Amino acid sequence: MSPSGIAGAVGAGAFAVVFTSIRTLANDGYAQTSEEMMTLAAAQPGFLGVESARGEDGLGITVSYWRDEESIRRWRAHADHVVAQRAGRERWYRAYMIRVCRVEREYGFER
Amino acid sequence: MSPSGIAGAVGAGAFAVVFTSIRTLANDGYAQTSEEMMTLAAAQPGFLGVESARGEDGLGITVSYWRDEESIRRWRAHADHVVAQRAGRERWYRAYMIRVCRVEREYGFER
Repeated sequence: MSPSGIAGAVGAGAFAVVFTSIRTLANDGYAQTSEEMMTLAAAQPGFLGVESARGEDGLGITVSYWRDEESIRRWRAHADHVVAQRAGRERWYRAYMIRVCRVEREYGFER
Repeated sequence: MSPSGIAGAVGAGAFAVVFTSIRTLANDGYAQTSEEMMTLAAAQPGFLGVESARGEDGLGITVSYWRDEESIRRWRAHADHVVAQRAGRERWYRAYMIRVCRVEREYGFER
């Protein structure tokens, strides 16, 4: 991740996991777990970057980038991540959608 | 777009355009143009949905979903959109990255 929060070029053929969510009002442990999962994800093989934003209306979008599908599968099945996913469904998220996508092309702008 | 702000199922084979940006401090016309572009995009052939979030740190992520690449090309070349893109580079964005992705699979959760 660049200092700006925009992930650098990941290259065509990489994968993007778009996680769009609406939070509940429950905050118990959310911020800490969220930060831990970001750190843990970044340490996984095949991790290429992450971008995350949550607006005042409670809608959040996190896009993580991965080298291949196998990296995504491993991260999804990581023991600590599985625990966090369960807590997410039980306490922190009212709804979410996950879309696994293949990057076809990318281009950017910087002033 | 569902009332929650999470786009409904778009189906494998659809396309996701991930637009990640950092804003400048310039606000002249930004909110209005942004809203107009959302409305205009939603009226284009092949538009399937959009999700958008901007955090307090200024990082924003907008993901728009499209039926096919041709729909994306047409929207990118839409005259009003081209004008807005130019204003974005000249005034509103410090940096952005656009990634065109193909949706491989999707799954969600709702309590």
